[in-house]
Amino acid sequence: MTLQVGVIGLGVMGAEHLRLLREETAGAAVVAICDADAARARTLAAGADVFDDPFALIASDRVEAVVIASPDATHAGLALACLAAGKPALCEKPLALTAGEALQIVNAEAGVGRRLLQVGYMRRFDPAYCDMKRSTEDGLIGPPVLLHNTHRNAGAPDWFTGAMAITNSFVHEIDISRWLLGSEPVSAMVHAAPGRDPLLITLETERGELISTEVFMNACYGYHVHAQIVGRSGTVEMAQPAVMLTNSAMQHGHRYSENWVPRFRDAYRRQMGAWVRSVSTGVPVGASAWDGYVATTIAEQIVAALGGCGKVSLTLAPRPDFYR
Amino acid sequence: MTLQVGVIGLGVMGAEHLRLLREETAGAAVVAICDADAARARTLAAGADVFDDPFALIASDRVEAVVIASPDATHAGLALACLAAGKPALCEKPLALTAGEALQIVNAEAGVGRRLLQVGYMRRFDPAYCDMKRSTEDGLIGPPVLLHNTHRNAGAPDWFTGAMAITNSFVHEIDISRWLLGSEPVSAMVHAAPGRDPLLITLETERGELISTEVFMNACYGYHVHAQIVGRSGTVEMAQPAVMLTNSAMQHGHRYSENWVPRFRDAYRRQMGAWVRSVSTGVPVGASAWDGYVATTIAEQIVAALGGCGKVSLTLAPRPDFYR
Amino acid sequence: MTLQVGVIGLGVMGAEHLRLLREETAGAAVVAICDADAARARTLAAGADVFDDPFALIASDRVEAVVIASPDATHAGLALACLAAGKPALCEKPLALTAGEALQIVNAEAGVGRRLLQVGYMRRFDPAYCDMKRSTEDGLIGPPVLLHNTHRNAGAPDWFTGAMAITNSFVHEIDISRWLLGSEPVSAMVHAAPGRDPLLITLETERGELISTEVFMNACYGYHVHAQIVGRSGTVEMAQPAVMLTNSAMQHGHRYSENWVPRFRDAYRRQMGAWVRSVSTGVPVGASAWDGYVATTIAEQIVAALGGCGKVSLTLAPRPDFYR
Amino acid sequence: MTLQVGVIGLGVMGAEHLRLLREETAGAAVVAICDADAARARTLAAGADVFDDPFALIASDRVEAVVIASPDATHAGLALACLAAGKPALCEKPLALTAGEALQIVNAEAGVGRRLLQVGYMRRFDPAYCDMKRSTEDGLIGPPVLLHNTHRNAGAPDWFTGAMAITNSFVHEIDISRWLLGSEPVSAMVHAAPGRDPLLITLETERGELISTEVFMNACYGYHVHAQIVGRSGTVEMAQPAVMLTNSAMQHGHRYSENWVPRFRDAYRRQMGAWVRSVSTGVPVGASAWDGYVATTIAEQIVAALGGCGKVSLTLAPRPDFYR
Repeated sequence: MTLQVGVIGLGVMGAEHLRLLREETAGAAVVAICDADAARARTLAAGADVFDDPFALIASDRVEAVVIASPDATHAGLALACLAAGKPALCEKPLALTAGEALQIVNAEAGVGRRLLQVGYMRRFDPAYCDMKRSTEDGLIGPPVLLHNTHRNAGAPDWFTGAMAITNSFVHEIDISRWLLGSEPVSAMVHAAPGRDPLLITLETERGELISTEVFMNACYGYHVHAQIVGRSGTVEMAQPAVMLTNSAMQHGHRYSENWVPRFRDAYRRQMGAWVRSVSTGVPVGASAWDGYVATTIAEQIVAALGGCGKVSLTLAPRPDFYR
Repeated sequence: MTLQVGVIGLGVMGAEHLRLLREETAGAAVVAICDADAARARTLAAGADVFDDPFALIASDRVEAVVIASPDATHAGLALACLAAGKPALCEKPLALTAGEALQIVNAEAGVGRRLLQVGYMRRFDPAYCDMKRSTEDGLIGPPVLLHNTHRNAGAPDWFTGAMAITNSFVHEIDISRWLLGSEPVSAMVHAAPGRDPLLITLETERGELISTEVFMNACYGYHVHAQIVGRSGTVEMAQPAVMLTNSAMQHGHRYSENWVPRFRDAYRRQMGAWVRSVSTGVPVGASAWDGYVATTIAEQIVAALGGCGKVSLTLAPRPDFYR
Repeated sequence: MTLQVGVIGLGVMGAEHLRLLREETAGAAVVAICDADAARARTLAAGADVFDDPFALIASDRVEAVVIASPDATHAGLALACLAAGKPALCEKPLALTAGEALQIVNAEAGVGRRLLQVGYMRRFDPAYCDMKRSTEDGLIGPPVLLHNTHRNAGAPDWFTGAMAITNSFVHEIDISRWLLGSEPVSAMVHAAPGRDPLLITLETERGELISTEVFMNACYGYHVHAQIVGRSGTVEMAQPAVMLTNSAMQHGHRYSENWVPRFRDAYRRQMGAWVRSVSTGVPVGASAWDGYVATTIAEQIVAALGGCGKVSLTLAPRPDFYR
Repeated sequence: MTLQVGVIGLGVMGAEHLRLLREETAGAAVVAICDADAARARTLAAGADVFDDPFALIASDRVEAVVIASPDATHAGLALACLAAGKPALCEKPLALTAGEALQIVNAEAGVGRRLLQVGYMRRFDPAYCDMKRSTEDGLIGPPVLLHNTHRNAGAPDWFTGAMAITNSFVHEIDISRWLLGSEPVSAMVHAAPGRDPLLITLETERGELISTEVFMNACYGYHVHAQIVGRSGTVEMAQPAVMLTNSAMQHGHRYSENWVPRFRDAYRRQMGAWVRSVSTGVPVGASAWDGYVATTIAEQIVAALGGCGKVSLTLAPRPDFYR
């Protein structure tokens, strides 16, 4: 009854996944870990097998399911290996660096004929997003017409270019907007402030809904994600991310977190629990390989159009029946 | 020391201006009123002279200054008459129905050589907008890069077309955005939801700031205006418009007002007080005729481009030195 | 039609009253002023007569109504002089230093047979308190059972003793609680933190409602007044006192004011406008001399009981029919 | 490494504990369950042994640790049985119906010489309370001087008497206040509204802090718990319990939950995880048997004094060194 999990990659996210599996997830045991830094892996082993080679970990008989949290460039290859081995995997976003690779994975999974991959778009498990989706589906705000997203990072390293703001950050809004609205973007338009930060990206969906997203990599004041769905008869939006308010030094308010880990800690935890249960029950949850492909290809198409000044039409490969 | 004011138009806004002059404004007396409905005018007279003809009111020796609150189509003619008579006027927005008329007024005022007209863009006197502007100018949030506006009406009559959403409602955002940022819009792009309501309008300014505005004429849930300025190191935004919170029937929260009158009551009051003082001191405040022209011409250019799908370049007539 | 007002006392509150009369109040003109600092008075004259002697100001033929904003110890004598002269007065709180003096004024006014005095308990004109009272009377929360008050000053001078926390600060809650609930306190109990600051004061009313008030003279973080009425089916309370929210330096929130003047600026303005109209119409508004007596005598009885550790019964003089 | 747990009582709380153990807790397996309703127990078994007799469950060799969630009257007996068997137990509050019984348990545990019991005062694991305690201990608000608690239930059954408001509801505030402040109450004073609901209870602690609590069993509008710690230089308080805000039908705000289960779901989950880890590591967490005794005896002493009108001195049995 206990799922035997191998974890590949023990950086910030990988270590957090390891902790979640060990301390906050029912029905799972970490039996194998792997990291480029072998010493780090040994330190975190706590009885798990330590692998140098992630493909060996995937192949290990003890490993029933895999968490892929190694560098982005390795995701596609490892996901394909899991498919080949017939082992379920939770793969950190992005699924692949290019839409071509992502589509290859999609086709491979369709070939296997079983949903084995879940992509780690954890926001789908965030209580606020979940409440917003449920309330919208329950008709609380009427048919959605607009979605306002704000995605602000306190700061980004110098090598974080305008393109990465889209492929690394905005992909979250691509995924969560599709999930919230249940419809596909068909056009994109990017406005950029001086220095290409922030960006203001407007998507139109197949149903005519508008999705407006501010992506600000150096917002400076803190990590802050917000979303509001506007419907024909009302709106739902995230409350400020705080359980405690302070009065101090002439100020009332609360502190932001410095990055996404504390803000989405609960989403990561719930994602892990849902994945483990999903592997047991065979009922897929969360973002599929197809969803991973869509996020990556839309981001890629928007990046290709950066610097132009008009609207870009977005196209998707045909969706395999397998994902309907 | 008491300014003798004549009020033209006694509809919703005119009657409110009348009340403000009589009950909440220092240094003013209403000596003349005029309305198309003469009986209504007599009812509200309270000792003021009642005129059938607004031009006669303007010409009256007793009248030192004029409030123009009659239907939009009459604004330009009455404003020109005030200029001809050399009498200061507070003219409800819009200054004129067309940019051509508005420019004619601008030139007429420049010809008089004295600032006589104030256009009733009352949001410039709203405490929240004022705090946001002051804090931004004080450097609290660093250089502004983005301005998010939301302009939602509970509902609009059937004859309120998509064009009017721009010429009648969005003009407020044109004016307040220019005032908040102190820079001029140079391009516009409109995205429309099905039925052309809501609209999502993106302006770029001469300094590269982005202005994103949702204009929703039938938001249904209430009248709601919001704005947030995003700077390089922080943001300022309006708090929810409520002084009282309620717990009742499983809900925590507050009520919206049904239209702009209660929401901006304080702004209207402060505008009136500032106008009366400004007439006394000769120091102009609020939106000038030039500002009135700019709002009208930008709205006109955006309307002309509705239905296209690209970015529109915005142009302004040369600004007379008089307004610098 | 313009009320000719004399202002006695030009300290912080007196100067604010002067400004309100001149800049933000319809139907009033300041014709006379008086301050212990004659030079200061001359600086602020702006055409008004300057008096050395406040009683001479009251007696002046030009003065139709008086604002009393001189030091607390002078209030009673000046209020009696206004009554003797038959002139309406807006008297800053407290009406008198002792309940005995306050009762003498009550009796004098009853003798005159006309309501001439309004005591400056300005909270009765604060939009938040007004909304709370109106909503409660409209039945929004059912019958009130509890009132929670918080009264925090950023800091108090050293000579501000525990007794003054009651006679100077808590008197505001005595008055506003009576006004909000429409019933009289019949017992009081004081709990004190070390150093007698903060105090926690519990009143019971004749109808059994409980009034719990924290009075904190050195709350340090800012000036903060809050109130919540708890009814049998819901609650109403003040929203945070802010029209603008800020994101900056990892923090979301707003700033408090340093003292009561900015917090209650609007209440002071509305009080002044209401008083001027009230003098014209002859219909009294705001706190009467009787209300001023009640606040003072209850404060006095609570101070007398400080240091005891039980409940104190509160008693009032018989209310003259005149005030019913 | 997996803790084998038996669950006694499968009512609302017991079923939730069962779910938490199975779905959201790492390192535990439910091997035995017991309920007065045997059919219900069989329905929920999912492979666990089903016991008719809770003492047999405790005695079972398969059971390493016990969750006690049966009716309040049974807690003491079952807790003693767990002590006798040397098995760790998480016992729902209250630990016992009387202070005498609770003290007997305390002495029994001290006799065993090992901390085996944790009492289910789950608020100690609520993120908001935890943040407030941590921030206070970090010095954010200076030394605490006051704690304001609000404890409102939407409604209570008729048989829920004034005494139960204290022994069943207010015990939570007794425990959490001691935990937040780290000091012991030494006196209590109760004010009651008509019908003895709500109550306003004031405690003084050994260090002179004041604890003011509104306990309202029929607040009608929803389940609502709030707390604010006031320190010498600032305050910390709970934010409104909402992750989503709604605009709908003229209202802005959020919904309350109907009872404590959704409000404290996260606290219950974290409590369970912490208890399971604590059993493994041997390091006790949460409320001890001593804490359970203190909450019960203080509640008992306050109930005994109900109807009196003065301050009650609170006394505790000597604390066994074992609990220091």
